[in-house]
Amino acid sequence: MFFASDNGGPVHPQIMQALAAANEGYRVGYGADAEMDRVRDMVREIFEAPEAAVYLVSTGTAANSLALATMCKPWETIFCSTRAHIHEDECNAPEFYSGGAKLTLVGKGDKMTPEALRTSILLEENRGVHGPQRGPLSITQVTELGHVYTLDEIKALTAVAKEYGMSSHLDGARFTNAMITLGCSAAEMTWKAGIDAVSFGGTKNGCMGVEAVVFFDPSLAWEFELRRKRGAHLFSKHRYLSAQMLGYLEGDLWLETARQANDSCARLAEGMRAIDGVNFTTTPEANLFFAELPRRLHKKAFEAGAYYYIMSGELEGDDPEEMLLARFVADWSIGAEGVDALLAAYNA
Amino acid sequence: MFFASDNGGPVHPQIMQALAAANEGYRVGYGADAEMDRVRDMVREIFEAPEAAVYLVSTGTAANSLALATMCKPWETIFCSTRAHIHEDECNAPEFYSGGAKLTLVGKGDKMTPEALRTSILLEENRGVHGPQRGPLSITQVTELGHVYTLDEIKALTAVAKEYGMSSHLDGARFTNAMITLGCSAAEMTWKAGIDAVSFGGTKNGCMGVEAVVFFDPSLAWEFELRRKRGAHLFSKHRYLSAQMLGYLEGDLWLETARQANDSCARLAEGMRAIDGVNFTTTPEANLFFAELPRRLHKKAFEAGAYYYIMSGELEGDDPEEMLLARFVADWSIGAEGVDALLAAYNA
Amino acid sequence: MFFASDNGGPVHPQIMQALAAANEGYRVGYGADAEMDRVRDMVREIFEAPEAAVYLVSTGTAANSLALATMCKPWETIFCSTRAHIHEDECNAPEFYSGGAKLTLVGKGDKMTPEALRTSILLEENRGVHGPQRGPLSITQVTELGHVYTLDEIKALTAVAKEYGMSSHLDGARFTNAMITLGCSAAEMTWKAGIDAVSFGGTKNGCMGVEAVVFFDPSLAWEFELRRKRGAHLFSKHRYLSAQMLGYLEGDLWLETARQANDSCARLAEGMRAIDGVNFTTTPEANLFFAELPRRLHKKAFEAGAYYYIMSGELEGDDPEEMLLARFVADWSIGAEGVDALLAAYNA
Amino acid sequence: MFFASDNGGPVHPQIMQALAAANEGYRVGYGADAEMDRVRDMVREIFEAPEAAVYLVSTGTAANSLALATMCKPWETIFCSTRAHIHEDECNAPEFYSGGAKLTLVGKGDKMTPEALRTSILLEENRGVHGPQRGPLSITQVTELGHVYTLDEIKALTAVAKEYGMSSHLDGARFTNAMITLGCSAAEMTWKAGIDAVSFGGTKNGCMGVEAVVFFDPSLAWEFELRRKRGAHLFSKHRYLSAQMLGYLEGDLWLETARQANDSCARLAEGMRAIDGVNFTTTPEANLFFAELPRRLHKKAFEAGAYYYIMSGELEGDDPEEMLLARFVADWSIGAEGVDALLAAYNA
Repeated sequence: MFFASDNGGPVHPQIMQALAAANEGYRVGYGADAEMDRVRDMVREIFEAPEAAVYLVSTGTAANSLALATMCKPWETIFCSTRAHIHEDECNAPEFYSGGAKLTLVGKGDKMTPEALRTSILLEENRGVHGPQRGPLSITQVTELGHVYTLDEIKALTAVAKEYGMSSHLDGARFTNAMITLGCSAAEMTWKAGIDAVSFGGTKNGCMGVEAVVFFDPSLAWEFELRRKRGAHLFSKHRYLSAQMLGYLEGDLWLETARQANDSCARLAEGMRAIDGVNFTTTPEANLFFAELPRRLHKKAFEAGAYYYIMSGELEGDDPEEMLLARFVADWSIGAEGVDALLAAYNA
Repeated sequence: MFFASDNGGPVHPQIMQALAAANEGYRVGYGADAEMDRVRDMVREIFEAPEAAVYLVSTGTAANSLALATMCKPWETIFCSTRAHIHEDECNAPEFYSGGAKLTLVGKGDKMTPEALRTSILLEENRGVHGPQRGPLSITQVTELGHVYTLDEIKALTAVAKEYGMSSHLDGARFTNAMITLGCSAAEMTWKAGIDAVSFGGTKNGCMGVEAVVFFDPSLAWEFELRRKRGAHLFSKHRYLSAQMLGYLEGDLWLETARQANDSCARLAEGMRAIDGVNFTTTPEANLFFAELPRRLHKKAFEAGAYYYIMSGELEGDDPEEMLLARFVADWSIGAEGVDALLAAYNA
Repeated sequence: MFFASDNGGPVHPQIMQALAAANEGYRVGYGADAEMDRVRDMVREIFEAPEAAVYLVSTGTAANSLALATMCKPWETIFCSTRAHIHEDECNAPEFYSGGAKLTLVGKGDKMTPEALRTSILLEENRGVHGPQRGPLSITQVTELGHVYTLDEIKALTAVAKEYGMSSHLDGARFTNAMITLGCSAAEMTWKAGIDAVSFGGTKNGCMGVEAVVFFDPSLAWEFELRRKRGAHLFSKHRYLSAQMLGYLEGDLWLETARQANDSCARLAEGMRAIDGVNFTTTPEANLFFAELPRRLHKKAFEAGAYYYIMSGELEGDDPEEMLLARFVADWSIGAEGVDALLAAYNA
Repeated sequence: MFFASDNGGPVHPQIMQALAAANEGYRVGYGADAEMDRVRDMVREIFEAPEAAVYLVSTGTAANSLALATMCKPWETIFCSTRAHIHEDECNAPEFYSGGAKLTLVGKGDKMTPEALRTSILLEENRGVHGPQRGPLSITQVTELGHVYTLDEIKALTAVAKEYGMSSHLDGARFTNAMITLGCSAAEMTWKAGIDAVSFGGTKNGCMGVEAVVFFDPSLAWEFELRRKRGAHLFSKHRYLSAQMLGYLEGDLWLETARQANDSCARLAEGMRAIDGVNFTTTPEANLFFAELPRRLHKKAFEAGAYYYIMSGELEGDDPEEMLLARFVADWSIGAEGVDALLAAYNA
């Protein structure tokens, strides 16, 4: 009954097996392993991008920060939503990796609109050397509130960016969860929708710690390699990053685990809708949502062994009916059993 | 017959088992896993330092850069040898993480002497705000040429540093190989010898990708935590770093693997001494050395399937007697069998 | 009839004379000039702060960026208004100097309220290492829209900052204009109101290019000195910065020039209020304001030789009644004559 | 009798007059002043480079750091001499402005040789992403020890740089002193000798505080402008930088002041050669040299009111014959009278 995050569950057995399989014999380090050649081919195939530059790092923040730093100059500003992970949850890593670029928060809430993006871009107009220069757009898909941009929404945002000569990055820590929701291909959600580079997440979807960075414009490849090394993110025993990604992609495991997570989330949401006193504050679209529940329900769940984040207020308190906001995240592993256990606790 | 590096071999089975054992159930992420509590205790015990701050990262460059950045100001200079890994092999990562500190190369070759260190320190004297300020000392143990500082040598260097108010860092990517050579304890090679912080390597000694950073002065802990997160080196699924370190430390595996590597290196050196035409350019003291061999010997080895780095000249060439410098590194896994296979190739 | 900025007019003759007076004989460079000793004393006296650390730099951006970098860590966020000069007009200089800190834009418009500040601070609560840490507050006085914080408003803001352990910086590029408006002392507007460090501007108020940075907590002094040198802002022929500041402070010239600028601004505003079709969009409180005028009025002024910035729309255009927003800034030199000339042009 | 530095004397009257002349009327700020248009034309003419990008900043460290940062990537290393000002005397400003690039110290002493440069460059060969990448060459002309590279020496160094695809920068804090020594043109000492960008110093040669940065490749111009603003080195009242440079260049004042300084230095050296006990440790070639004198001579000079830097040892001491190393720098203003006064003191 762990719904605190999709980084709390175990690594998928197929990925553990891939690690074990790679643990034979000797390899040249630093990304020259044969496994990486296969990863590169598979990622290019998935993205229908035979020329793409493909790299692996071990954390989502590394993927985002290194990708954005490569797309950005220190005197520019990156356009993102007010709730973007790169703004809220990376302790200034994008600012650090970019050498001091700014983040411009677009509009309100977790999803940018083309209108709000244009307004933010225009605010930086006509300032010559005085203001920050326009840097890349970064879209978080799935958003931190669990919402999914439609393909048309992504296209509309990247179209505005292109109009102003800006490139577009997709923070896909939950890339595959969004794909499953949209029923689209990886290519459709990225370069076909105007995305120039993507952080393609594995960690939250069953891997141990691996994210791919894909540049559809391979001219940025060498700079990225230098930035990755300088950022201390080039693994000497790189085959174990490659192996994770292989295990993740082989037999479409990535699609399966994301589907499992989304299904569990939907099952939980459906069950909670039937419970009196539950108030959804976001729409469950992928594998997470936010909802307010009276304290008494939270208490029943926690006493039964559930764990998730109470976002406002304290679990302990007098008023059993006080509404406490919580975040619910389902990972690939929680399954119908885990969901039903939580629902049972609420309904007990 | 892979002697190119100690990052080319497999992960030790005990560490793979520790990863499998940790792959059960759910954990809160980002270093709050129960495994990390055990790691902290074990590392403190090994270092006889019950107050030490202990952190895990996944690469040696991260360990060094984050530790040094925490010990250093951007306007300071770090004192290290001309052959230090932090100078030669980290693509300016220490400069990046420190916000632009300088590295002062002390003396000649791979080992600093107290005299050369003092000379370098005094060069920065009396310059007020104009010159770089004196920052930490960083000692690479084992050196990049495979030499081991004695305890007295370390003490003499850190004593000079202390005299000038400087702190001391030990880059211990091959920490345990040096311990085995010296027959000393972890505490003796660090704080008892004047070291304030250490990068305690696991990756080169049988792990998949984990290094501990240990601060004997815990007042630096919180800054390190922020720097680690900002550097994108805080793992969400942190238990898999913890598990590696547990597997590494349990039952003194770390000592065993380092001893195996050192023994293989010694066996190789001994065998090569008996081969006509081999000229050692460094003294084998831990698990690596450099030697010149005539091209004909290299060719025999490579044709038999050996792999190691030719440091100068080309394997292909006309003169069978031309001496080509090579680096030989033994890891835990190569074993007597691997060594003997290489020697047999030379002697064939 | 130059109302585009307070950096467009001549240097006050008294300051030119001070430069000439300093241009005799020899001085040791880099701030060790005797003139600087007098400057330090005078600034300490003005601020009633006998222990304050006092430094000179040549640009306002240098004063702000160096002061804030000294008060801030790279993983922190600086709280400022949405219209702060440090955010809008310094091309990411604060981000650069701080090593990648963030700026949190508080509330709406050019003036922060204590409530909005608290809301912004609380947004950064409880995120551990994940979010940016709370850094200093920076108040722009006079604001970029020409408004002046009252002493109570400053006190209320710094009280909120202190509540959360944050220090407070005042960007006083137009420091003296605000003092004149408030009728207060330099001490009252700074440390007596909770300010820890101030950029005390001279350039906009009759100097050639000099700003003092004053730290009421002298423990930050040495770090500032190193940052100033490293930022290439330590003048070798420092006496010419000192001389400007001497000329500026002697005989209370600084108060006189600020009063002249404010008076000219008030005279202009009064005159414009009497003109049909003028719509003030900000309240003239110090030496600048914004107003909308119909195109025909702007045209008359520009044809008569006036110059100021049209902030939205184009001077050239068909509709004589279209309202075009403009910024009007009075410096010390423009005088009643300059103001009356502009008014005459409008009224012609 | 001030021989401590060429930043200790007064500003040349012609430059003070140029400042006064510019102090009329109003100007748009930030480099759009009419004076700057004239400066640009004059600098281009002097350098016979009609397309060159020309910018002004107020300190030599700013000129060097901003120029090098524009020519360099953070993962590169800048090649300079062991005694380069950018290494010894800028408190890590090049590292700061470049975002963490390294400085590789070439050879021994204050002058690089092509052989030593090639050796240093080759040390960085074949390291892939691991080592720093090759960045620009930076030549200090006049060197910090007062030596002057011949045109052939500059050409030989830049030829090696070009061979490896590296660009070349000239730190010309004492540019004109070197020109006078060599009897060459500004073009001959720069782009005709393979230099791509130059810091063209004014401050040490009679100005108040102004240096031009000249890029012979104007494609770097816009990045430089952004870096200058972000570095807080764009003057709002820019006309006063322009005016200094105008006063400096008009009527070839710059050549005259440099000739005066060099002549005074030569006169001093000649006079000192005739004094028993003086030992020159550098060859006087431009406007500074180093020499050892017995303490008794230094004491006589200081007692007579002379001031210069004793580089080793203390003026106070028992042994009248102990040799103390000193640096002697002549500026434009010291004149034959000042020189003869010092010589008279020694000979008294």
